[in-house]
Amino acid sequence: MREKILETVTELFIHKGFHGTGVQEISKAVNLGRGALYYHIGSKEQILFDISMSLLRSALDTTLPFVDTDDPPDVKLHNIARALLRHHATHGEGWQVAVREARFLSEEYQQQVIDARREFEQLWHRVLQEGARAGLWRAVDAVDVRGVLGMFNYTARWMRADGPLSPEQIADRYVDLLLTGLIERSERSERSDRPDQPEPPPE
Amino acid sequence: MREKILETVTELFIHKGFHGTGVQEISKAVNLGRGALYYHIGSKEQILFDISMSLLRSALDTTLPFVDTDDPPDVKLHNIARALLRHHATHGEGWQVAVREARFLSEEYQQQVIDARREFEQLWHRVLQEGARAGLWRAVDAVDVRGVLGMFNYTARWMRADGPLSPEQIADRYVDLLLTGLIERSERSERSDRPDQPEPPPE
Repeated sequence: MREKILETVTELFIHKGFHGTGVQEISKAVNLGRGALYYHIGSKEQILFDISMSLLRSALDTTLPFVDTDDPPDVKLHNIARALLRHHATHGEGWQVAVREARFLSEEYQQQVIDARREFEQLWHRVLQEGARAGLWRAVDAVDVRGVLGMFNYTARWMRADGPLSPEQIADRYVDLLLTGLIERSERSERSDRPDQPEPPPE
Repeated sequence: MREKILETVTELFIHKGFHGTGVQEISKAVNLGRGALYYHIGSKEQILFDISMSLLRSALDTTLPFVDTDDPPDVKLHNIARALLRHHATHGEGWQVAVREARFLSEEYQQQVIDARREFEQLWHRVLQEGARAGLWRAVDAVDVRGVLGMFNYTARWMRADGPLSPEQIADRYVDLLLTGLIERSERSERSDRPDQPEPPPE
């Protein structure tokens, strides 16, 4: 029941925004009187908070099992990247609401959302630090981690379920880009032998 | 006058969203009657469109001069990255509104915003292709370009004017990360001397 309400209200928030969606409208969409709605969820702000937190918690829940293993850090990195993009692919609308509307939450609720986001960020930081300690790549700080997450989170704005690449393929490409960079040694020497390569087609 | 109105309404949209901001409220905040407001700008939707477009145009205008030069592609890349993060640092609120509220525009307006975004994306694609053709780094496609832009655009969500790193410093760090990757070459060759390191994961 609660799940269903959150889903329906996510749709409403997507199309009309938090402020553009009235309680009356929510009540009608979920087919519950205002009293019953309040009983199940609480205020409109409470619904927005629940949407944001259930999203962040499920992102944490899908990531943690790949962090708490004995896999090598590079395998972990691929796994958490794939998990995140799968999550974006399946919860795209929820992410949009959580990102766009969270500023309308009260300070106390906002702080809880920020804490949950930070917790998620910490998981990535941890995996990246493990790789650095294992000598696989260089040390990273919070600015690097945000750059990395920016790359992955931005997919929410353009990734389509029916796109040519799966979430996992995009995740693997970005992990490789982050690890090896655009300057690849082998490609560079290969390319210098073929200076007149055709340009990739424009989008 | 128009500039001033857009700035004031950007503030309102930041705090209350497009749908949470009434025309009456706008009219009061900019100290103009509804008639005069309509004369200067038009509808509320028109204001949102103008905020988004003037932002995207100014981002294009600050980027173009660094693209249309004879600088080597790596210098161009550093320059457009710095220009973008400076733009984010000085137009943070405008970016937030443009990103969050653009979905409330009519389809026709949305298309113009999308076209302008694509134009901006193309500038980055062009610089990255020039570097690839010059043999500085590997070829990129639209998915790479979006990953790169994700890294930079995500800064709008966390970069603070009084943060410890300047926009230029963050830009330089991210460009370096993109070009060389986390696996720095010295580390990479070091690793080949230690064959018992875990292999990089299959693509």
